[in-house]
Amino acid sequence: MTQSVRALFFDVFGTLVDWRSGVAREAERLLRAHDQSTDWLAFADAWRAQYQPGMEDVRSGRIPFSRLDVLHRHNLERVLPRFGFRNIPEAVLAELNLAWHRLDGWPDVTAGLARLRETFRVAPVSNGNIALMADLARRNDLRWDAILGAEVAGDYKPKPRVYLAACEAFALAPGQCMMVAAHSSDLEAAAACGLRTAHIARPDEHGPGKGETVPTVPVDVVAKDLLDLAAKLVG
Amino acid sequence: MTQSVRALFFDVFGTLVDWRSGVAREAERLLRAHDQSTDWLAFADAWRAQYQPGMEDVRSGRIPFSRLDVLHRHNLERVLPRFGFRNIPEAVLAELNLAWHRLDGWPDVTAGLARLRETFRVAPVSNGNIALMADLARRNDLRWDAILGAEVAGDYKPKPRVYLAACEAFALAPGQCMMVAAHSSDLEAAAACGLRTAHIARPDEHGPGKGETVPTVPVDVVAKDLLDLAAKLVG
Repeated sequence: MTQSVRALFFDVFGTLVDWRSGVAREAERLLRAHDQSTDWLAFADAWRAQYQPGMEDVRSGRIPFSRLDVLHRHNLERVLPRFGFRNIPEAVLAELNLAWHRLDGWPDVTAGLARLRETFRVAPVSNGNIALMADLARRNDLRWDAILGAEVAGDYKPKPRVYLAACEAFALAPGQCMMVAAHSSDLEAAAACGLRTAHIARPDEHGPGKGETVPTVPVDVVAKDLLDLAAKLVG
Repeated sequence: MTQSVRALFFDVFGTLVDWRSGVAREAERLLRAHDQSTDWLAFADAWRAQYQPGMEDVRSGRIPFSRLDVLHRHNLERVLPRFGFRNIPEAVLAELNLAWHRLDGWPDVTAGLARLRETFRVAPVSNGNIALMADLARRNDLRWDAILGAEVAGDYKPKPRVYLAACEAFALAPGQCMMVAAHSSDLEAAAACGLRTAHIARPDEHGPGKGETVPTVPVDVVAKDLLDLAAKLVG
């Protein structure tokens, strides 16, 4: 069933990179002078909690497509006051917003992607914008065939257009493409568009033991990490 | 003047890859059985001659945006009968259309791009579509930060939108981006959008001695090839 797969599309935040510890680290580095006592992981969680509502404004058509960097900045300004941060200089805010460009991959990601790339076309199909994806790729030595996803499609996952635009960019039918994610909701939406799906366990995405370890929807492949996925797809 | 440059955008056909000999080689390989006597380089030239008229249908708004693979196929079907090719099987036509995905870089390109990538973000800003650019990158070991250009912009060079969309994708101002091309017309259009420009000599693009060796418009940098460009920009 997966033998016709030619391209792998990857979710990025949570699936490939550990956004929680990375955002907490960057926030502490840049905001420590302004408040010593904040729980930086809670700050990361709060910022991330604004992620879906921010994108929903675009998905619903209430606002035109805006890159994730723009939504992140808007969300940041909503979250800062709740943690007692006020009057942060513009230069610090701009730098802090780039926290999402400076996330580290889970330990299997660089080697696993390199292995998968020997057999498949590989691209991120993330809601992150192109510049953000390019920075994460440089930082983590990820070699993509192209950066696909929200900015290329002009909409946000889980809207079907995002998955289908990625297939079209590689001139492939949906059944020749496999979405790889640690989130069942992403895989469910991809499968509804005709893509194959692979679930990756990221048990610590939201803190120790608080990520998805198994899919809650039917998928084609279940893998522990990218190296395990490579073993299952390539052998 | 070029010290603020953060990203280099590359024209591809002619500037990075030798389309003429590659298309001639592929045409000969696939069509030889159908006609022994054709001048394969003339066939490549004739196919390429349809390139600008095909894109002009999109640029003018006469037809909606179509990927270059689609335009190439349309152009191919116009050119084949002139060379006496009729009733070519569909599978051969489809394979022949991929000739543009199988072009070889000029000798300096792989090493030169790798060197430039150490200092700058690098992306193709070509009229070629994403799948085509991805195939050329694999074949020639080109490591891009992202694939930008016509398909991402939804229009064809030299329309300003293509250059400006590339700058925006990298979150850079036009003055922080430099267009690199062997064609003065491309550089003139990029400069009109505020980008910096570098001319690369490709004296043999259209056959021995029939390419641009020097720019016919003002540019910021004149280079013999990508290694020379790296020496001039990075030192």
